[in-house]
Amino acid sequence: MTTVHAYAAASQGSPLEPFEYDLPGIGPDDVDIKVTHCGICHSDLSCINNDWGMTQYPIVPGHEVSGIVEAVGEHVPEAKVKVGDRVGLGWYSASCMHCQHCMSGDHNLCPTSEATVIGRHGGFADRVRAHWGWTVKIPEAMDPAAVGPMLCGGITVFNPLVQLNIKPTDRVGVIGIGGLGHMALALYNKWGCEVTAFTSSESKMEEAKKLGAHRCVSSVDADAIAGEAGRHNLILNTTNADLDWDAYVAALAPKGVLHMVGATPGPISLSAFPLIVGQRSMGATPMGSPATTAQMLDFAARHGVAPVTERYKLSQVNDAMEHLKANKARYRIVLEV
Amino acid sequence: MTTVHAYAAASQGSPLEPFEYDLPGIGPDDVDIKVTHCGICHSDLSCINNDWGMTQYPIVPGHEVSGIVEAVGEHVPEAKVKVGDRVGLGWYSASCMHCQHCMSGDHNLCPTSEATVIGRHGGFADRVRAHWGWTVKIPEAMDPAAVGPMLCGGITVFNPLVQLNIKPTDRVGVIGIGGLGHMALALYNKWGCEVTAFTSSESKMEEAKKLGAHRCVSSVDADAIAGEAGRHNLILNTTNADLDWDAYVAALAPKGVLHMVGATPGPISLSAFPLIVGQRSMGATPMGSPATTAQMLDFAARHGVAPVTERYKLSQVNDAMEHLKANKARYRIVLEV
Repeated sequence: MTTVHAYAAASQGSPLEPFEYDLPGIGPDDVDIKVTHCGICHSDLSCINNDWGMTQYPIVPGHEVSGIVEAVGEHVPEAKVKVGDRVGLGWYSASCMHCQHCMSGDHNLCPTSEATVIGRHGGFADRVRAHWGWTVKIPEAMDPAAVGPMLCGGITVFNPLVQLNIKPTDRVGVIGIGGLGHMALALYNKWGCEVTAFTSSESKMEEAKKLGAHRCVSSVDADAIAGEAGRHNLILNTTNADLDWDAYVAALAPKGVLHMVGATPGPISLSAFPLIVGQRSMGATPMGSPATTAQMLDFAARHGVAPVTERYKLSQVNDAMEHLKANKARYRIVLEV
Repeated sequence: MTTVHAYAAASQGSPLEPFEYDLPGIGPDDVDIKVTHCGICHSDLSCINNDWGMTQYPIVPGHEVSGIVEAVGEHVPEAKVKVGDRVGLGWYSASCMHCQHCMSGDHNLCPTSEATVIGRHGGFADRVRAHWGWTVKIPEAMDPAAVGPMLCGGITVFNPLVQLNIKPTDRVGVIGIGGLGHMALALYNKWGCEVTAFTSSESKMEEAKKLGAHRCVSSVDADAIAGEAGRHNLILNTTNADLDWDAYVAALAPKGVLHMVGATPGPISLSAFPLIVGQRSMGATPMGSPATTAQMLDFAARHGVAPVTERYKLSQVNDAMEHLKANKARYRIVLEV
């Protein structure tokens, strides 16, 4: 029995407080990770506030874990993960491993997949447990202190490149230069694409170019968006806002895709005709599979892509959450455990 | 100079009346087709009524042409089409042949493509002219009198199979068993898929099974649609109605696609969360390219797929249009010229 020292919210919207719980004996497929760093994602805040109606209290948030393997169950394949390995853990911590989706490599679409912070305790803690299939080895070239945000935010924006078969010859747009968007600019640039940042903030344009954007367009200037007509093979929306989606569809090239990784509050409303005439579509993806996550880490390590982070001690977690709530994070916060 | 004997609507919504016009001398890339049969499509009615605001009067409708090549311009490749060939012509009659889309085989996405009945005269006539690239040879095994509707309605529902890479192992649903839907049932069945017909009409269910459906679901029974949760890799909407799209998204398997070929009057409204979690998408396509149309005809000929048609003489065209307007066509009308 291991006692875990964590921070938890006891009820909807309440601050995080020190919280201890005991891990039961390790299961055959379990991996116990000694957490060294954990990123803070906007969805941790959503879970604390029960925005999606699926939070169970007390909740220990944290699903952007970087740490060292401390123990493994008897069925954990040694060639995959062993004690002492530097590993990461993201939004998902387990899946059934045997359904059609898991067997097709789409473990992230498993109907019984387990989220790291839903109905179990996450990474704002000194230890976290996961199924071996969902632990991902961190390449040596990556900074263990900065890798956490790649495992949720990073894979969220990388996964569409793989799922949609985006090519280096494609023109891509990214709406929103925040926690997700700033990683998308860097990854899409290294993917070889022409990258356009759509941002409401003039002040972010110069920085967007440093991050990887080749071009910037004001997302609050309807004429500027209209000027993009027919240009983009992919437009990725990283915001949680209800925008004028038809305007972005008009900015798509024939066969172009408007792709959502931010859960917009209102329904997404699109006119049929521009979709039909230009063979355009709108879709969405969740975080990627373990295999795609491993590919992303290799790709990011090879190209020197890393999130821009701010650091807080785990004991300062409430300060960090306030910083996030105030929309001041530039661009991801990492807790040092 | 050739005089063409046609039927035209002189103004918005007016009946079709005999109309003659002279074709200028044949251009180097032109093919003149002696029309033997022409299908009637619902979009002919939409054009007569100027529903899309792009009709030019007088309009000679008709874009489901079957006929014999009567003359070819000097640059028409003989190996592609020659005098005496049995050819078809659909919604498009020309494209630039040199833009990125044409050069990629996506002539149907050419920004300067020419529609057979917009700004030029269509197939409710004894002759029609087209660019050689858009004439498609009719396989000998196909009935020239029934092939017309394949060239618009047929390719409209066949094109998604190709564009979306639908596999014979997929489960597909078809909403609406009419002019488009009845061809989709037959084609999707022969494609090897499990085919489910969604229809508002109990009386059509038995016939839907004869046409190719393996299963039928009432599209006016919300519980029945809910019972399809997670089942379909593709759901094709062939109707022009504003339906409960979220209900159909719920009927999609992970990675499933809701696909539109009917231009719905209202915007298509979708909730983000079910799309994200299940990696689902919604898209649309126009009619296919000439190459895809040729593939469809070969496939249909090999599998004995043909539309179910009713026949009228060209001189009875107004009776035929009334029959279509009354929603009584079972399932496509062909004019004999």
